Amino acid sequence: MMKTLHVALDERSYPIYIGRDLLAQPELLTQHIKGKEVLVVTNETVAPLYLQALLDSLQAYQCESVVLPDGEQFKTLDVLNQVFDQLLSVHFSRQVTLIALGGGVIGDMTGFAAACYQRGVPFIQIPTTLLSQVDSSVGGKTAVNHALGKNMIGAFYQPQCVIADTNTLNTLDDRQLSSGIAEVIKYGLINDLDFFEWLEDNMTALKHREPAALAEAVERSCIDKAKMVAEDELEHGVRALLNLGHTFGHAIETGMGYGNWLHGEAIACGMVMAADLSQRLGWLTTQDVDRIKALLLAADLPVTTPEGMSSEQFMSLMAVDKKVKDGVIRLVLLQGIGQAVMSDNYSRDKLAETLELFQH
Amino acid sequence: MMKTLHVALDERSYPIYIGRDLLAQPELLTQHIKGKEVLVVTNETVAPLYLQALLDSLQAYQCESVVLPDGEQFKTLDVLNQVFDQLLSVHFSRQVTLIALGGGVIGDMTGFAAACYQRGVPFIQIPTTLLSQVDSSVGGKTAVNHALGKNMIGAFYQPQCVIADTNTLNTLDDRQLSSGIAEVIKYGLINDLDFFEWLEDNMTALKHREPAALAEAVERSCIDKAKMVAEDELEHGVRALLNLGHTFGHAIETGMGYGNWLHGEAIACGMVMAADLSQRLGWLTTQDVDRIKALLLAADLPVTTPEGMSSEQFMSLMAVDKKVKDGVIRLVLLQGIGQAVMSDNYSRDKLAETLELFQH
Repeated sequence: MMKTLHVALDERSYPIYIGRDLLAQPELLTQHIKGKEVLVVTNETVAPLYLQALLDSLQAYQCESVVLPDGEQFKTLDVLNQVFDQLLSVHFSRQVTLIALGGGVIGDMTGFAAACYQRGVPFIQIPTTLLSQVDSSVGGKTAVNHALGKNMIGAFYQPQCVIADTNTLNTLDDRQLSSGIAEVIKYGLINDLDFFEWLEDNMTALKHREPAALAEAVERSCIDKAKMVAEDELEHGVRALLNLGHTFGHAIETGMGYGNWLHGEAIACGMVMAADLSQRLGWLTTQDVDRIKALLLAADLPVTTPEGMSSEQFMSLMAVDKKVKDGVIRLVLLQGIGQAVMSDNYSRDKLAETLELFQH
Repeated sequence: MMKTLHVALDERSYPIYIGRDLLAQPELLTQHIKGKEVLVVTNETVAPLYLQALLDSLQAYQCESVVLPDGEQFKTLDVLNQVFDQLLSVHFSRQVTLIALGGGVIGDMTGFAAACYQRGVPFIQIPTTLLSQVDSSVGGKTAVNHALGKNMIGAFYQPQCVIADTNTLNTLDDRQLSSGIAEVIKYGLINDLDFFEWLEDNMTALKHREPAALAEAVERSCIDKAKMVAEDELEHGVRALLNLGHTFGHAIETGMGYGNWLHGEAIACGMVMAADLSQRLGWLTTQDVDRIKALLLAADLPVTTPEGMSSEQFMSLMAVDKKVKDGVIRLVLLQGIGQAVMSDNYSRDKLAETLELFQH
């Protein structure tokens, strides 16, 4: 069974297809390919699993592929250039369609490559991890990292469609699955208490990869995200709430070296830090904080920071976050479970207390 | 005296200010700076001439600068990364404004850096060469080169304003001045016979840098370009005519190694090749071709190709051009002086004849 959601962005609108065995339905994909040229971008982990089948279904096209190394540490301008090398060496034109086959790193890089190649060509997202199916493949945020900050170089650039085949989640390792669940929990925390409660009831099923539970989690996450993106494509307002846990989390990812902590792991810890600060501000009860921690722990996610990060390092890394305005770090905080707010109106002392508590 | 033109692009509309001593009027610039942070991007040639005065006029801002090496061979992703290094090392936020102070290379790179930094920040063009004042600073085409093709990685991204101070043209060397005149002549050839005739009458004045002639040339060029850009921002139609001479010319620039031939020099030769092919197709008279060559020669521009480029190399390099569609190289050709057309309906044999004639 397949569900189709729509991201409503005027002439940039596109469908998200969610379901099992979608990769076995090539017409889902090919209806969105305009020209004859296709470049599939994937990585060393995903290629052996799904690349050949995808290429087989694209035999009517002039189809090439490029296999990048796997990991957040390879989401760089240098590795991005390998995609351009391939596109140019086979003389692909402005009519090429890029296909991202992989997780968030592949999706972010392929989308950014599509945004820049010949000043913009179409691309399609085939996310193969839970994290990319529920978050990074939807909404058009594309980017590469810089040594001094995560996702600092990129573009808002929407895909032609997103094909989320939940079968691909069976090949994820447990750590990758948990990392994806972190972003799922985020949607509950932001504005969907009902979904948060559903997750409390169904975490075991998710951890056991029960297909119905996975499909439900992906669909509800995409519905929540698509709504916020449609309302605020360029993140001038409500979309910024999707960054709950990300200002703290990006500091962890950058501070620990890209690839050491998975994105979802860093975001899980970041959400606990945001909850802790919210509680210090009197916005959240201790019971709520404990409930958040319990759900993250049930998903095998970290709720404490990595060793070796001082509060000074946190402050320095958080100062380059994209949410900084006029020198003030704006944070997504919680006024309840399902009630996230963007705020720069918090006590700096309380933030310092949170960072003190979490430093090792 | 200052002229103000408008590039009409809805919410992306912006003014072009043209005149003498504009750099001595900081309010022209500062009215377009929204935040407190400013990064000036310039190069080693321009910095000693104009950077300090510009920084002095921006003392009310938190202002930094980055000085890049000078030349087309440095318009790369690697050098672009130096701009990101600087932005991130001083912790500049999404509210930063980038200012391009220099020629086309600086404008293209600064614009692309602005398009990508934190997924998009504002930028301002202060073009200091004739070529950038009449062409590259207007219209929002930004890019860097790739070893396999010119301007292959970039974005359409419009500036907040363009400030063309014609005084800065006095510090250009003669070769740079001629290179700019090539793009000026292009506007006449495309759709402005009257301007072409004006150029025939005023080439000596331009070569002698008479201020009134320079101002007139910049203004008429910008009017012609702004009109075509407003009509077709993303180059789906009429804007493509601005590439007259560029498919041949980019092949020369890439084939000779970026920076050996100046952009305008390559475009001058490319326009002669386009004229030659047009004449072979029976679209242009021999007299017209001679008239075009005569004007380019009067501007001290090359009308023959560089030594060492074979017709095979031309074909191979032209095949990666952005105007290629379904394997066919679309060319801008001439049906008269002031009557350019985009065409893929030309005899391949005639193109081969032109390339044969021009190869060394």
